[in-house]
Amino acid sequence: MNIIDIIIKKKNREVLTEAEIKYVIDGFLSGEIKDYQMSSLLMAIVLNGMTDEETINLTKYMLLSGSQINLSSLSNVVDKHSTGGVGDKTSLIIAPIVASCGCKVAKMSGRGLGYTGGTIDKLESIPGFKVNLTKEEFLKEVEEVGMAITSQTEDIALADKKIYALRDVTGTTESIPLIASSIMSKKIASGSKNLVLDIKVGEGALIKNLEDAQRLAKLMIRIGKENKMRVVALLTNMDVPLGNNIGNALEVREALDILSNKPDSNLLKLCIELSSYMVSLGLNITYEEAKAKVHEVLANNKAYEKLLEFISYQKGDINSLPESNYTYEIKSNKNGYLTQLSSLEIAKLSMHLGAGRQNKEDTIDYSAGIVLNKNLNDEVKEGDTIMTLYTNKELPEIAQEKLFTVTDKPDSSYKLIYEIIK
Amino acid sequence: MNIIDIIIKKKNREVLTEAEIKYVIDGFLSGEIKDYQMSSLLMAIVLNGMTDEETINLTKYMLLSGSQINLSSLSNVVDKHSTGGVGDKTSLIIAPIVASCGCKVAKMSGRGLGYTGGTIDKLESIPGFKVNLTKEEFLKEVEEVGMAITSQTEDIALADKKIYALRDVTGTTESIPLIASSIMSKKIASGSKNLVLDIKVGEGALIKNLEDAQRLAKLMIRIGKENKMRVVALLTNMDVPLGNNIGNALEVREALDILSNKPDSNLLKLCIELSSYMVSLGLNITYEEAKAKVHEVLANNKAYEKLLEFISYQKGDINSLPESNYTYEIKSNKNGYLTQLSSLEIAKLSMHLGAGRQNKEDTIDYSAGIVLNKNLNDEVKEGDTIMTLYTNKELPEIAQEKLFTVTDKPDSSYKLIYEIIK
Repeated sequence: MNIIDIIIKKKNREVLTEAEIKYVIDGFLSGEIKDYQMSSLLMAIVLNGMTDEETINLTKYMLLSGSQINLSSLSNVVDKHSTGGVGDKTSLIIAPIVASCGCKVAKMSGRGLGYTGGTIDKLESIPGFKVNLTKEEFLKEVEEVGMAITSQTEDIALADKKIYALRDVTGTTESIPLIASSIMSKKIASGSKNLVLDIKVGEGALIKNLEDAQRLAKLMIRIGKENKMRVVALLTNMDVPLGNNIGNALEVREALDILSNKPDSNLLKLCIELSSYMVSLGLNITYEEAKAKVHEVLANNKAYEKLLEFISYQKGDINSLPESNYTYEIKSNKNGYLTQLSSLEIAKLSMHLGAGRQNKEDTIDYSAGIVLNKNLNDEVKEGDTIMTLYTNKELPEIAQEKLFTVTDKPDSSYKLIYEIIK
Repeated sequence: MNIIDIIIKKKNREVLTEAEIKYVIDGFLSGEIKDYQMSSLLMAIVLNGMTDEETINLTKYMLLSGSQINLSSLSNVVDKHSTGGVGDKTSLIIAPIVASCGCKVAKMSGRGLGYTGGTIDKLESIPGFKVNLTKEEFLKEVEEVGMAITSQTEDIALADKKIYALRDVTGTTESIPLIASSIMSKKIASGSKNLVLDIKVGEGALIKNLEDAQRLAKLMIRIGKENKMRVVALLTNMDVPLGNNIGNALEVREALDILSNKPDSNLLKLCIELSSYMVSLGLNITYEEAKAKVHEVLANNKAYEKLLEFISYQKGDINSLPESNYTYEIKSNKNGYLTQLSSLEIAKLSMHLGAGRQNKEDTIDYSAGIVLNKNLNDEVKEGDTIMTLYTNKELPEIAQEKLFTVTDKPDSSYKLIYEIIK
């Protein structure tokens, strides 16, 4: 077997055999196949696609390239994955809800790059919070608290890690089979047999349109089935930021606020839906039964207490979240309704304020970010503050007209959840 | 400007600007753009193509990445390029013909990789032959002898050299715009304002079908025009090896034989055509006038003497060409006509006998190769020798049925020259 022949096969839209895919993954990990050969193959896959069979095999050998976590000693285990969005702090809200309902959440999360943040970055904004747990600490916490979140250990889905880093710098991130196999190889290795997917759709997300999101959902459900995993996928809106806060410590604050004050918001609505599907899978009960439990742990504050317990268990000090030195308010210059709140432009601005990494080497300012004082379709008056920027840097140039629009009528087309695929 | 954005643009089938192409070439040469980013972009170009405008710009910045030879002090200069074929020793025959007619041939040639040989390898099979001339030696020889052949100097079209090496190991060789810009950047840098292209078409060539060959020809003629170069392209057959000998020293012998004995053969016919177009361009006379001159220098042996003069000028000893220790004859097992003489399979076999390189590090056995004792459509009897193998290695396994077929009737579909495009 020869990598050049395999690249040419994919270039010619032919289907790669299982043996060829194994050869690619093993060879890339061993260094026999070079980065420049892998990136050529990845671009051929991005442009010519892969069959479901090929994607299942790719997932298999990425999974086998690392170790796997065995959670069989735990019951009611359920996992969740979001494809990444702007202001997406759902993991911080959902895991406590679901754990309070009696499920076990053993979650490995990643860091963010570019516009969208990672759960680990958000947790690290809490002074003292320990994100690197040993396997033993991790499992002990899941058993005792019902939930634990740790950064992805070095040794799961090793090939995925190496391929992902390469895709990031070679313009080969946008590919349904590559996204599906990357996520699923890690999720299968993480040991849960139940998984709820939050597939973000919109300009602020990796997946830009509903059709691609549907293909991705179906493909991941199929890969799950092949691996005896039950998967439910929610296709949700990412044209508009999720919730009001964007930025690491700011998002931790919002998670605490959501669970303690339960403000009526799209963020809480989405968290309730995602949690209900997770509890339904984890406890093997109906969606309606699960939803009742979710509402209960919200109303009696068990979920809020669980979040505090989890943070304190991992040594975080919630009372000393960092604050930025400078704030800056962006105001409306007319009366009307707030529409076209661009998640992409807001995410870019947040990154420039210090909340995200442009390059892997960049350090994050945990206090930086944006708070939306008004949200989609809120009525605003001239001079009202629409958003507040938090930063320790000089303000970047701001093109206010790209961030939002104020129009005469609200935008009635907004939909939070597009579709649920099982 | 950012290489990832440029890769994504090409991935999305968008057209790259001149500034972007300059950025890619400069950045790749400086090392700022990495091999793995370039190969991803190259695969996107292979699959999504380039406009003529993009290809012209790519050629321009590859040309400008190196130095250029100034031949303006010489008159009647003409160059020739073949896209590479099996048994293609036309340069060794044509350059002496054209020089004898009063043209100047200042030719830079390459080495072979894979199935097809390079002119420099063929010349190096002559003991003593000096293939690395200084610029001064090169120009002096062109002036005194009328022709000189040297290996491509290190400093012309530097970016092309680096890109070509990468394409070779990343499955990105088959692309009309990449082939066109690679050839033309080198040819423009070589300084001739007149160029005849021999575009090989067939299973033994880089270009497999006539349609692609036509596109390539038109594109190279267009690039030539943009650079004030007159280009004529001949699209010629490479399903069948060219001439009877394949292998380095064996091909030198055949070149000498063609010019001294002038046997009636497709090889001589093609050389006469190519030479006539070259002389027509170089002396600015009609094709018919040029053809008469070509026949004259063949008949009076001036071309043969020119070849001997050229070899001896570059210190080659034509009387001590290497010979292999072992020969092996492949015989016909029936009566009929020799058809389907596969240039691809014969080239592979020749490479395995030692005549070519599988990897860049391989050394060539100059004596190794194949002599066709019978050629296409010759009548053969059972037991007749079809071809003789020359090698110093153990014989590889030979699948005789893949090399040729003996059929009841000759193959009347063979065509030596498909088309001439100006």
